[in-house]
Amino acid sequence: MSNRLFVRVAQSDGQIVHAEIKDGAAHVLSAAPWLGGEATGEAVASFEGMTDRRLVAPVTPSKILCVGRNYAAHAKELGNELPVEPMLFLKPPSSLIGVNEAVMLPPASISERIEHEAELVVVIGKTLQQADETTAQAAIFGYSVACDVTARDLQKKDGQWWRAKGMDTFCPVGPQVVTSVDPTNLRIQCWVNDELRQDGLTSNMIFSIPRVLSHVSQVMTLLPGDIVLTGTPEGVGPLKAGDRLRIEIENVGTLAVAISARGAA
Amino acid sequence: MSNRLFVRVAQSDGQIVHAEIKDGAAHVLSAAPWLGGEATGEAVASFEGMTDRRLVAPVTPSKILCVGRNYAAHAKELGNELPVEPMLFLKPPSSLIGVNEAVMLPPASISERIEHEAELVVVIGKTLQQADETTAQAAIFGYSVACDVTARDLQKKDGQWWRAKGMDTFCPVGPQVVTSVDPTNLRIQCWVNDELRQDGLTSNMIFSIPRVLSHVSQVMTLLPGDIVLTGTPEGVGPLKAGDRLRIEIENVGTLAVAISARGAA
Repeated sequence: MSNRLFVRVAQSDGQIVHAEIKDGAAHVLSAAPWLGGEATGEAVASFEGMTDRRLVAPVTPSKILCVGRNYAAHAKELGNELPVEPMLFLKPPSSLIGVNEAVMLPPASISERIEHEAELVVVIGKTLQQADETTAQAAIFGYSVACDVTARDLQKKDGQWWRAKGMDTFCPVGPQVVTSVDPTNLRIQCWVNDELRQDGLTSNMIFSIPRVLSHVSQVMTLLPGDIVLTGTPEGVGPLKAGDRLRIEIENVGTLAVAISARGAA
Repeated sequence: MSNRLFVRVAQSDGQIVHAEIKDGAAHVLSAAPWLGGEATGEAVASFEGMTDRRLVAPVTPSKILCVGRNYAAHAKELGNELPVEPMLFLKPPSSLIGVNEAVMLPPASISERIEHEAELVVVIGKTLQQADETTAQAAIFGYSVACDVTARDLQKKDGQWWRAKGMDTFCPVGPQVVTSVDPTNLRIQCWVNDELRQDGLTSNMIFSIPRVLSHVSQVMTLLPGDIVLTGTPEGVGPLKAGDRLRIEIENVGTLAVAISARGAA
């Protein structure tokens, strides 16, 4: 099966549409592709390719799950034990942004240490409930790229990570969702400006993607369009206003977002 | 201003509608009342009142926030320090049920200790972003009743509470949303079968509702329809299959749900 690429675009009339990228053009879909959306025959007017500033987050999940400590070297760099089963947490949908928006750093009175965590994203295609790994694998719609932006000081201070992981703009995802990728051995790289900060391989995940999805589905129904961030390799580090964050995952895409201070012009 | 009561009902054609209860009848609304829904002129056919088994959860939040340790006596019964600022966590929308459904206990291999936490719910009426307490107060649409169902063993074991608090059916809310209530001194009672387990007063909250909403809005946009569970008074205790849970909050309503074992007939 060949790869298919899906995006969401804000059209000039303000309407946001799902679209499939084919032959360099964006073809409007009647609904999200994981909900059976089909080509309407229309094209998105004057689409400028994957750098189009009208590209919004390609997904609209009812929930965002993230795996913590899924790469041994990253668990170690933060001084954590390796987990014996997948360790997850939630980010709220209000934290989601696309490449058309910037990660907004809060004032220092809230956090003084915001870090990047580059991650492969799984997009769920079919409802999963108490599923085994084979069923979980078959329910995957596709993959994308995300940064699990994290306030490291609040993560230590708060206990629960609702703020540290859940602030507005702390979940940039995109620019696209790609189908038919083998996620088991992909290179993940993260640059801040021109500095390579993270350079890992998904083959180093402690828990495989089907294992994580099966584990979640034992307690929580995964719905089409829900997303799971699968953990970050080592090399996490600070972000400051004015930085340019770029995360590249082999065969999946390149997510580039600006970092701004809240209240900055 | 007099109280208004809002519910959601599954009609016989399968469609779920928002409705306002007035003169004992359920009047269909064009949309959620916090999104400006208005009476269509239709009534829900053969509505049976607040025990109607077609009543589903009265809200469809994009996120569910919960305050932990917001009553001193409850923090103490679990051996916790009092928080110096509001301590929150997220439940996923997939955990939400109405009075038409049962709380489903997972198998003992997942958790052996599921407990009730009776809570007053705030329903957000207007978008809140970096709001002060006065603005937060003015953005409240109304109130409801919830149980923050909690797997106490997983809460201790997992670190992050995604499973302990987030399993399917672990957030019963309802049966109604009530406007124009003064939430500052209401009695909250929780019965399991005929045993009174919790009996508290909202006047004992450590952090007031406007304080909690303002605090959240400094980092996370609250949207119309989002809900905040405001913490539980002391007296939490275990639930077992076959129990009947009943939570009554003065002037707000009575939430009654069945407790079942997953996989039971």
